[in-house]
Amino acid sequence: MNPESLAWNERLVGLESGIVRLDTPALVLDLDAFEANLAAMAAFARGQGVKLRPHAKTHKSVTVARRQLEAGEVVGFCCAKLGEAEALARGGIDGLLLTSPVFGESKLARLLALHGRLADLAIVVDDPEQIDALARTFAAAGRRLHVLVDVDVGSHRFGAPSIADALALARRIAAEPALEFAGIQGYAGSIQHIALYAERAAAAEGPAATLAAIRDALRAEGLPCPIVTGAGTGTHEIDARGGVFTELQVGSYAFMDVEYLDCGLTADGSPRFRPGLEVWTRVLSRRHAGFVTTDAGTKCFATDGPLPRVVAGAPPGSTYRMAGDQFGRLILPDGAASPPMGAIVRCLVPHCDPTINLWDHMVCRRGDRVEAIWAIDGRGAVA
Amino acid sequence: MNPESLAWNERLVGLESGIVRLDTPALVLDLDAFEANLAAMAAFARGQGVKLRPHAKTHKSVTVARRQLEAGEVVGFCCAKLGEAEALARGGIDGLLLTSPVFGESKLARLLALHGRLADLAIVVDDPEQIDALARTFAAAGRRLHVLVDVDVGSHRFGAPSIADALALARRIAAEPALEFAGIQGYAGSIQHIALYAERAAAAEGPAATLAAIRDALRAEGLPCPIVTGAGTGTHEIDARGGVFTELQVGSYAFMDVEYLDCGLTADGSPRFRPGLEVWTRVLSRRHAGFVTTDAGTKCFATDGPLPRVVAGAPPGSTYRMAGDQFGRLILPDGAASPPMGAIVRCLVPHCDPTINLWDHMVCRRGDRVEAIWAIDGRGAVA
Repeated sequence: MNPESLAWNERLVGLESGIVRLDTPALVLDLDAFEANLAAMAAFARGQGVKLRPHAKTHKSVTVARRQLEAGEVVGFCCAKLGEAEALARGGIDGLLLTSPVFGESKLARLLALHGRLADLAIVVDDPEQIDALARTFAAAGRRLHVLVDVDVGSHRFGAPSIADALALARRIAAEPALEFAGIQGYAGSIQHIALYAERAAAAEGPAATLAAIRDALRAEGLPCPIVTGAGTGTHEIDARGGVFTELQVGSYAFMDVEYLDCGLTADGSPRFRPGLEVWTRVLSRRHAGFVTTDAGTKCFATDGPLPRVVAGAPPGSTYRMAGDQFGRLILPDGAASPPMGAIVRCLVPHCDPTINLWDHMVCRRGDRVEAIWAIDGRGAVA
Repeated sequence: MNPESLAWNERLVGLESGIVRLDTPALVLDLDAFEANLAAMAAFARGQGVKLRPHAKTHKSVTVARRQLEAGEVVGFCCAKLGEAEALARGGIDGLLLTSPVFGESKLARLLALHGRLADLAIVVDDPEQIDALARTFAAAGRRLHVLVDVDVGSHRFGAPSIADALALARRIAAEPALEFAGIQGYAGSIQHIALYAERAAAAEGPAATLAAIRDALRAEGLPCPIVTGAGTGTHEIDARGGVFTELQVGSYAFMDVEYLDCGLTADGSPRFRPGLEVWTRVLSRRHAGFVTTDAGTKCFATDGPLPRVVAGAPPGSTYRMAGDQFGRLILPDGAASPPMGAIVRCLVPHCDPTINLWDHMVCRRGDRVEAIWAIDGRGAVA
């Protein structure tokens, strides 16, 4: 039991007496599913000869990162923000890749401090100004930072906009004594949720070809490119089989969510991962035919994706909508009786990353027993 | 400076040297605007002879509650969840009204414990089952709880569905020795954001008439109804002038947001409240014409309402969209030059309640100086 979770535990009645008395709403992780997902991804990576660099933006949790390490094939972790990396480092996690640039005096000072605490830290850049700022900072401190070039493979968010531009950035990094060119990153975020596997596979060809061309051009001019990092849960199988990526930045696979459950993630159609993360909510008001009001709204579920999916505690065919920040509406199928006052309704999370970021802890269950409470250490670490 | 904010302060460089070195992204409160808003609402309430019961679901902050108390005309605070009330009580705030029912053994035990810590605690109900559970709990403890009847005035979320039903619930409360009937609540959440004042005023007539009818019927049968509570920032002027409500459950007025800025809140069209709450974000990537990527996405801004509104740091006419969980896209008007790398862009928050709930602290500025860091004590207290 994590000591930070003590305050929250006051809200549980009879932790040892089983989950049926859990207070709601709660973010609940099915440990059997979670562990099966970690094992399945590790086995897949082992079989393909590719490494994993799970993305901590999904879970922001030291404990989850440790479990991912133990499951195998993990070379390190991705962090979207410096604050996430600091949270993991405080928990003893090393091998961190910052998957987006940082800029500004405060961020550079923090990056330098983090570098002093870790054996293995790397960051991506997409602009000469970022490279110059990193070089100045690390040269002044007499230290050396691993830097990757981020390549825009379609999201138009970060990344060198062309192969020539990526090569120029790599050369600029390599020319700085305080920086070591460590490889390239191309994250095709915009294609991860294409529903059909074949369409997603087709969309993944361009990004992989771009990265391969950059890698080969760098090698041809004598600049080794040890890391080619990218991919996600949506393209993990496609990108592993493609052979370009040395490591996969997978995140959602550990928990799954409604967004990914609607995507075919394997060529043969067999599910590799099980849904494991739910919000448990309770019926609070039942004064209308056809629906009831529950205790979980937009402060419990991310609203940037699909709606939560009801999986237990309500008549089959029930759907869930937000009824404000703090409450939900469980809509019953025609003619169905309302669940009783206080009934617990279980919903799969709509989009796992921003949903997890709403919670300070996740309640980990094994069947109908609460086995642990895990802190979401980097929750809110957006800076 | 709140001691809880120390960990976060490590992320500020030179707090005393001014906000220009503030790390981003950050939730930034303009104290001049905030204080003006509190003063304006207190002056309005004083002029109308109505009291305020500000809703803590908006801010979840002990310090903000204290400031609201100091501004005057405040009889107590609303809380949407028991966890919010516990957070305020820990900070010494009393006079709490739980504006939604609670149910279940754990919640009842917590409610009883909270009742023991406060001089003034009340809760609403909308179902006989809730009344019976409260009566059993408080009778067994030899204590007495103030209970209000929640009336459905159009949101169909909570509330007695008819006048006859509300009267029956009130009688049932009054018949319980462990409960004291304290009044009625009708929160017309669904009309608060009607853009035109006249249309909103028309929509507010029905809810007020329903509540007045219930109040009068109760009085006629000898049951006093001391509290008639409801309204919000959207209808505060309308409902105060209507004379039915004894207190106004206002929340957003303290900060304002894009949602409310698009509503005419006063009959004469003059703005009573100033926008005071912003997210400050930084330009991180500028590799495309027409837009840049910034460091604040859906983990910084609520996505249940409008988009953030750019108010400074970018060419006039710039707009802001989410670019994933951690990043934003600042879209520039035709032909405008990109802001420089690291430039700070200031955005009004889209919907203040769920935006504030994403952050652990708000940075309070007076002009260009950071004056304080306020903890959002009840952040994530959804249970």
